[in-house]
Amino acid sequence: MGSSTTTPPLTRASVIEAHALIKPHIHFTPVLTNTTLSTLASTPQTPEALKGTPYEGQTPAKPKVKLWFKCENFQRVGAFKARGAFHALARLSEEEKSKGVVTHSSGNHAQALALAARTHNIPAHIVMPTISTPSKIAGTRSYSANIHFSGSTSQEREAVVATVIADTGATFVPPYNHPNIILGQGTLALELESQVAELSNGAVKTLDAVIAPCGGGGMLSGVATALAPTGVQVYGAEPSFEGGDDARRGVAAGKRVETVKTLTIADGLRTPLGDVTWGVISDPEKVKGLFAVTEEQIKAALRLVLERMKVVVEPSAVVGLATVLYNEEFRRIVEKEGGEKGWDIGIVFSGGNTTVEAIGKLFAVDEKKAERAEGVLGAQGEKVAENVAG
Amino acid sequence: MGSSTTTPPLTRASVIEAHALIKPHIHFTPVLTNTTLSTLASTPQTPEALKGTPYEGQTPAKPKVKLWFKCENFQRVGAFKARGAFHALARLSEEEKSKGVVTHSSGNHAQALALAARTHNIPAHIVMPTISTPSKIAGTRSYSANIHFSGSTSQEREAVVATVIADTGATFVPPYNHPNIILGQGTLALELESQVAELSNGAVKTLDAVIAPCGGGGMLSGVATALAPTGVQVYGAEPSFEGGDDARRGVAAGKRVETVKTLTIADGLRTPLGDVTWGVISDPEKVKGLFAVTEEQIKAALRLVLERMKVVVEPSAVVGLATVLYNEEFRRIVEKEGGEKGWDIGIVFSGGNTTVEAIGKLFAVDEKKAERAEGVLGAQGEKVAENVAG
Repeated sequence: MGSSTTTPPLTRASVIEAHALIKPHIHFTPVLTNTTLSTLASTPQTPEALKGTPYEGQTPAKPKVKLWFKCENFQRVGAFKARGAFHALARLSEEEKSKGVVTHSSGNHAQALALAARTHNIPAHIVMPTISTPSKIAGTRSYSANIHFSGSTSQEREAVVATVIADTGATFVPPYNHPNIILGQGTLALELESQVAELSNGAVKTLDAVIAPCGGGGMLSGVATALAPTGVQVYGAEPSFEGGDDARRGVAAGKRVETVKTLTIADGLRTPLGDVTWGVISDPEKVKGLFAVTEEQIKAALRLVLERMKVVVEPSAVVGLATVLYNEEFRRIVEKEGGEKGWDIGIVFSGGNTTVEAIGKLFAVDEKKAERAEGVLGAQGEKVAENVAG
Repeated sequence: MGSSTTTPPLTRASVIEAHALIKPHIHFTPVLTNTTLSTLASTPQTPEALKGTPYEGQTPAKPKVKLWFKCENFQRVGAFKARGAFHALARLSEEEKSKGVVTHSSGNHAQALALAARTHNIPAHIVMPTISTPSKIAGTRSYSANIHFSGSTSQEREAVVATVIADTGATFVPPYNHPNIILGQGTLALELESQVAELSNGAVKTLDAVIAPCGGGGMLSGVATALAPTGVQVYGAEPSFEGGDDARRGVAAGKRVETVKTLTIADGLRTPLGDVTWGVISDPEKVKGLFAVTEEQIKAALRLVLERMKVVVEPSAVVGLATVLYNEEFRRIVEKEGGEKGWDIGIVFSGGNTTVEAIGKLFAVDEKKAERAEGVLGAQGEKVAENVAG
């Protein structure tokens, strides 16, 4: 963003400031609980489910868990991205505002930026590949954004962005790798804290942990920044498919993974970290750990949310839940640290932008696969029916 | 139900009593609003959408509508049926309770009755056809019910029910055609009233209308009974496919339609009215009117709820919304009676018991059909994208 843009430091105080700035424009999204899913998370996996993992043959962990879901699928534009976009705009100088903003994306960030710009009467320029689906183009256009078409490589898109900047003086607003975006996304953690305290009538003073999806890392960085001084442990979750767990691998190796090429069904998480989000996420004082889940685990978690919670989320949104349910390494941590009392875990449902056709394809393409995904549940699966009575 | 069962009269006061009895056992389900859907309902249909209807060539109605959704998809067992079941059990004598309850159903009523019986430590006998899907059998079994298998005709099922009654002295609890079931289902209307008043900060003192799905008519009868003295107009909605609009046709002809054979996708609404529910629903002082919607209109409404509201409902749950969006006869009433001020309409989402596979099949079997269903929206469809921003 521009040189006159105000960029506060990455601290909890800055997240609180960001929240005050964007509050009038965003939805205060609900926090939901679900007895079935909490019971399921507190049920040991089957020995079968641990086959082929480093935990094969060992006693499955028996963590005690209560889950609190922060539902950003109900956020404006259907995802947490509205928070960062509104905050980024609030931090522009008046001169910058008059010249407008530009980004390249065909996803939630573009729509969020277009919405925020329209709200503040600022011109928005969105660079989209010519090959974008008509519905995405129409969706972005409906927010009164100026659409500029480009080729589909990142070089081609950046060239068009450069032209727009040269022509209009617009400020580039990146999708995740900027402190103002990070601080905006982090505001969801502040709401989650206060909502859990209220919903539990003060019984849960602080969550023990929060687990959030990690793609470019803007939201996870924001949540970690917001919660760092509180003692709440922050974890990130990623898809393991085709190396989609770049943040986890990078932190393990002590060096950021700069390119990722995965076609994981968690399509919002195909992006590598940027240098700013790497700075937060690789800091063990801020992010306690990163975990990866398989495509089948993501699908099994997605099915549970749709069929049991009756809430529509996109596949990217459930990697945190999948980790709590199926990642034995994480479950052992919860068992060990939570002990008899157990852990209250906040789970961020990042977004809900999907279609009935996409849901259909995900679960119908190969019925055998769907069965295997159900099989992941093992003994936990049987518990589900019993506990839907909540 | 048995002769010693307490059966209060079908009045609002009885619904209030029923609510007090079941409150500890049911979820106080949320009421949701949605700017996109209210705007859509307030947008005239396209002339195209009126082709082939009695309104072809006329100016489409322009009602002003604010929608309030009572979300019984979040109710225990995933549907409003829990209310009636808990109430029916509360009204049994102690002797009846000790002998247990029996019903025949493979649907939500069976699971609701099994849950209520387990809660009160009463034996539950569920008669299910041998050909029921294993998941339904397992689902019902998980509530600790005794399952008795029968043939699949109603005569065969009733014979097994008679045997169970002869063997155990259990009380038969019908799914809809009994005052205690009706009074239990009606409790959702009491909650809806108070929730709308609270959510609107008192601005909406009473809804102008409530529209609810009508299958066997238990829930619609209950809602009508609860609201009759309040001045809120109560309407019923049905699927038109293969004569599924039996209540509408019966009321028009002044005679109850006693058998229906439809394979509408709104599979919870394939049942005809019983004599008790007919008594309420055919009373114009209680139910103001009945409307029917097509399979494509149901699918279009279902898509909107899943993709825009991000909430999972079953097809039967959206016939009320489909009526408000697409039934021109109903829309003209709203335009005329609501005038400039418009109408606040309560819509009952009756349940959310579906699977990702069922959603997939509904929208993937024939992509052309799905497109036509979208086409139903016409000019309204364009509005959607614009208003998803809330």
